[in-house]
Amino acid sequence: MTQQPIRFGLIGTGRIGQVHAASIAASPNAALAWVADPFVDGANALAERYGATATADATELIAAGTGAAPQIDAVLIASPTPTHVDLIEASVRAGLPVLCEKPIDLDIARVDALRPLVAELGVPVALGFNRRFDPNHASARARVAAGEIGALEQLIIISRDPAAPPADYIAVSGGIFRDMTIHDFDMARFFAPDIVSVSATGTRAFDPGAREHGDFDTAVVTLETSAGAVITIVNSRHSAVGYDQRIEAFGSGGMLQVGNPLSNTVSVSTAAAVEARPAYPEFFLERYAAAYAAELEEFVKLARGEASTSPTFEDGRAALVLADAAQRSAVEGVAVAVAL
Amino acid sequence: MTQQPIRFGLIGTGRIGQVHAASIAASPNAALAWVADPFVDGANALAERYGATATADATELIAAGTGAAPQIDAVLIASPTPTHVDLIEASVRAGLPVLCEKPIDLDIARVDALRPLVAELGVPVALGFNRRFDPNHASARARVAAGEIGALEQLIIISRDPAAPPADYIAVSGGIFRDMTIHDFDMARFFAPDIVSVSATGTRAFDPGAREHGDFDTAVVTLETSAGAVITIVNSRHSAVGYDQRIEAFGSGGMLQVGNPLSNTVSVSTAAAVEARPAYPEFFLERYAAAYAAELEEFVKLARGEASTSPTFEDGRAALVLADAAQRSAVEGVAVAVAL
Amino acid sequence: MTQQPIRFGLIGTGRIGQVHAASIAASPNAALAWVADPFVDGANALAERYGATATADATELIAAGTGAAPQIDAVLIASPTPTHVDLIEASVRAGLPVLCEKPIDLDIARVDALRPLVAELGVPVALGFNRRFDPNHASARARVAAGEIGALEQLIIISRDPAAPPADYIAVSGGIFRDMTIHDFDMARFFAPDIVSVSATGTRAFDPGAREHGDFDTAVVTLETSAGAVITIVNSRHSAVGYDQRIEAFGSGGMLQVGNPLSNTVSVSTAAAVEARPAYPEFFLERYAAAYAAELEEFVKLARGEASTSPTFEDGRAALVLADAAQRSAVEGVAVAVAL
Amino acid sequence: MTQQPIRFGLIGTGRIGQVHAASIAASPNAALAWVADPFVDGANALAERYGATATADATELIAAGTGAAPQIDAVLIASPTPTHVDLIEASVRAGLPVLCEKPIDLDIARVDALRPLVAELGVPVALGFNRRFDPNHASARARVAAGEIGALEQLIIISRDPAAPPADYIAVSGGIFRDMTIHDFDMARFFAPDIVSVSATGTRAFDPGAREHGDFDTAVVTLETSAGAVITIVNSRHSAVGYDQRIEAFGSGGMLQVGNPLSNTVSVSTAAAVEARPAYPEFFLERYAAAYAAELEEFVKLARGEASTSPTFEDGRAALVLADAAQRSAVEGVAVAVAL
Repeated sequence: MTQQPIRFGLIGTGRIGQVHAASIAASPNAALAWVADPFVDGANALAERYGATATADATELIAAGTGAAPQIDAVLIASPTPTHVDLIEASVRAGLPVLCEKPIDLDIARVDALRPLVAELGVPVALGFNRRFDPNHASARARVAAGEIGALEQLIIISRDPAAPPADYIAVSGGIFRDMTIHDFDMARFFAPDIVSVSATGTRAFDPGAREHGDFDTAVVTLETSAGAVITIVNSRHSAVGYDQRIEAFGSGGMLQVGNPLSNTVSVSTAAAVEARPAYPEFFLERYAAAYAAELEEFVKLARGEASTSPTFEDGRAALVLADAAQRSAVEGVAVAVAL
Repeated sequence: MTQQPIRFGLIGTGRIGQVHAASIAASPNAALAWVADPFVDGANALAERYGATATADATELIAAGTGAAPQIDAVLIASPTPTHVDLIEASVRAGLPVLCEKPIDLDIARVDALRPLVAELGVPVALGFNRRFDPNHASARARVAAGEIGALEQLIIISRDPAAPPADYIAVSGGIFRDMTIHDFDMARFFAPDIVSVSATGTRAFDPGAREHGDFDTAVVTLETSAGAVITIVNSRHSAVGYDQRIEAFGSGGMLQVGNPLSNTVSVSTAAAVEARPAYPEFFLERYAAAYAAELEEFVKLARGEASTSPTFEDGRAALVLADAAQRSAVEGVAVAVAL
Repeated sequence: MTQQPIRFGLIGTGRIGQVHAASIAASPNAALAWVADPFVDGANALAERYGATATADATELIAAGTGAAPQIDAVLIASPTPTHVDLIEASVRAGLPVLCEKPIDLDIARVDALRPLVAELGVPVALGFNRRFDPNHASARARVAAGEIGALEQLIIISRDPAAPPADYIAVSGGIFRDMTIHDFDMARFFAPDIVSVSATGTRAFDPGAREHGDFDTAVVTLETSAGAVITIVNSRHSAVGYDQRIEAFGSGGMLQVGNPLSNTVSVSTAAAVEARPAYPEFFLERYAAAYAAELEEFVKLARGEASTSPTFEDGRAALVLADAAQRSAVEGVAVAVAL
Repeated sequence: MTQQPIRFGLIGTGRIGQVHAASIAASPNAALAWVADPFVDGANALAERYGATATADATELIAAGTGAAPQIDAVLIASPTPTHVDLIEASVRAGLPVLCEKPIDLDIARVDALRPLVAELGVPVALGFNRRFDPNHASARARVAAGEIGALEQLIIISRDPAAPPADYIAVSGGIFRDMTIHDFDMARFFAPDIVSVSATGTRAFDPGAREHGDFDTAVVTLETSAGAVITIVNSRHSAVGYDQRIEAFGSGGMLQVGNPLSNTVSVSTAAAVEARPAYPEFFLERYAAAYAAELEEFVKLARGEASTSPTFEDGRAALVLADAAQRSAVEGVAVAVAL
């Protein structure tokens, strides 16, 4: 491959921004060229580490991708959610392909306002639904698509975070469905995109923060597809057993199950219990490390105009529509029809 | 133990009646004394095999439990559902403890009409929710009750039959929730009795019989408890992998999972796949063989006035209330509050 | 089947004798007619429980199988090992088929002395190698025989008892190879009968009784077959994890593994460890309960002159030859050639 | 860490040399400075890729580590086995720490001839027993060392290569024990270093190359430790199920088992078989990828004079002594005492 690496402008240098910076640095197909963060120390640190240019101003970063001698080829948005819509707009107006962390926005109206422009300009916009690139989930999905279990009839997605976030975070999160389940909505659509109905139940079983801010800490969402398949998402904001991310795909001819990876392959047996395995990965950075790298490679293809499986702006919007429907369903006790 | 065996009058000699006859014969605490079935050849065959008296008339069987020299001590009702209410009534009026197959009836009005009499007379009535006695489910429930996983927050019950019943059966079954999910409603209550809300989704994914008769072949039910726990039931009328009966109990301190038993402990590895296990049991008679025997022993205790964990008439009614609520929820697209 | 049940004379009423008595009583094809034990209280107790005739004298029992109106059709020998040879001889001279507990004797000379008579008379003699009838081992062996893994090249038999026997027992046991490994030698021959060489290593890792009496508590035996397959037996006199009985059959096309059965299908996950299973069965009575019943049914066929897979006197002799060779190999540090 | 990276001179650019080159390049603590291979195209290719200096002459490479301005700090020997002894000698005489692939040599006499010099000079020499650094094996060994299963009494090492090497390779390999089992001997000593006796059985079950050259394709080795623990190594030159590398450590208080890693966490269930997992890794490059990286890091510590767990020249010699003993045992049919 004699192609030049894609030069990235990275906006946002928090935890997830740092993950992306490392992925970019590790890829032979990508290079980190600019880093922007209003918290300029963060930008400087990353820029120094990877030999990039730092700025406090994302606008400056995007501008560096324009003109006679552009210094970046694509933008990776890892800044706080409320900034996403404006940064996507500025990037695509500058002709720069975008990889944006989920969600696009907590407000579907803002997403829908941006939608025509994205469609019209045709500049690639990918959403950071990294789980699609997890080798385990991806293998199961490919095998379903290949017909290994016949027609898909049921999908069960179990998704539990290790511990509830602080109450302050809950307050601005948009609620469990827009903040946490959003990944599971996309995973549901990864297996069965044509969802027509949403039914959700949420409770406050343990988290004072959820109670304080009218959110749920425990939730189950049922999705119906146009073909009559039923998808079940089971969420909890905490999990004593570690990050719990499993999928069961049940079809007319068999069943595929995605288990949690284990820290290692050792099991222990004693008088009390046998064949006990070591703990699950602590959280998403460990569990989805390979997924972040694969996500980046797939976006590079998208940015180059090659065939790519990157989830798109439309996928980002669809997940938010499902989250809104789930929120309404859980609060009002009704099934909500959706047209994605 | 010097107690005399409980002498049973068995009503109904179909598949499940024969299972109970065999359990009675195998138990040192039970004996089969009378057998009734309008299909008198069936009654005669069982009676001859186990040394009992046969009749075509269940009334005669119940009468044999009265008078100066009663010949039976308890009634086991394994006849078709529409006969259950009348037979329970006749039995308790005769002072005979009853073990009745589920459901009590498909019509909650008939159940509620019988309810005061059962309560007033105080003659024991047990319902045939055999799965409570499965050693696997029972072990999980005991460990939850013992606090091994802290407070129960989520319960997932996966319950799939091997193959859809004939369309003729679907027509009179009362629908998937009253016919099949009823076992899962009871299992839900076995772990968390205090259910306050029901939400259900049903689809027709594959079964022409379900389509023809307005029933569902695929269903997911979400139950909420007063403590904020959420229970998810996943049903299918068919399963290419065999009878699929699993439970996941998720609590604040850990998780217990009940897997399907395997035909044996052999696994095979080849170039194509590794550690493959032999098929699951074909259906309930194999899977729940031990459960039927344990159910009978527990009912014997109930009939003797000893402490017993047999599910009761009230448990039978509660499962039906949940089934009715699920049916309404699935059809109307609303969450349905219940007071059990 | 309109055949009369085989009427058994049972000699020996210890633990294993009681297991066989229960199997006989539970089988529709067998009946317990006579019981003999010099400890006559034991004989009386069993006889009363199952409606048999008791005697202190095994000779009287065998005599009851002769004459114009014989009262037994077969003899089951569950008495102490030193009595086996004489009782087999008396039984076959009386024309009575024999099922004898292993080993035939601790002294190969005595076995070889009896051998011509058994061959000449042709009265069936079966050895109690019950593990052949375990559904797990039997399934693996049938699949190997069916060619599922191609040519068998390696077999690993792991066999560990829960706890070392008392030193007094060790003293008269004939040593670990004749007492414990004997079952594994037969299992080896169940998969690959044609063994040509034996190599054994024994140590005293933990048991004072083994040290005191010059026995081993830990042993590994390597067997070579004429086709170049290698069989490994791993033994321990104790196991903190419970009775440990596993087999791995490795062939040119794949691998079959027989795991330990679990008490139930529940697994538990916590922060410390995940997917932990409940303990293994405590000892052979639980683990091999089904095997004892199947062993009896197969012997009934043998006694009736039908096709039967019961291991024979020759199998019993072969296992002892291997045990002797292992003992010599472990003591002298040489590989020992055998001709079975 | 402000330390300078260790500058490596790599000798040998075959498959394993390339693995080490990649590990060096990926480590922040290592740099590839020189590459030597008589096949100079290989040296040039690697040197160009990683910015190193190439030579056909290993002597030149070692010389580059001496003088006023040394260009390398350590030597990594990945050339053919017959060159190892001379290259180790030259390196340690030059004062350069060495990481040498196993085995040191096929001839213990040559190893013993070098031994005093290595001991006298005290320049660190590490052996490439990479499996010690596999996270799975290492975790099990650490847990054994921490006393989790009490005293170690039995160790079973199953080690099967995917396919037999060509007959030409067999001819010069030194035989299965020196070529393949050598890794397992070191693994045995990783868990229990003090081995006193070796017993081995080898057969030719399938490989014409083994037959042709008097080698074995199937082998079992039994090792005895001074404490009476027994170690069993089970080898095959082929495995239809892929690279098979498992360990079972059995102790007085429990058991630890190291399973094969799986390609991913997906399992499939159908009517034919359930819970089947995807294939094992194909061979050592996949299975032990993490181990090679960890091995390098540990050697860097050794080269810097820090505490290190790298296996040493003595470990390399001990493995060869055990291999020689196994070869003699298998051929002569005797147990061979060893003093390591």
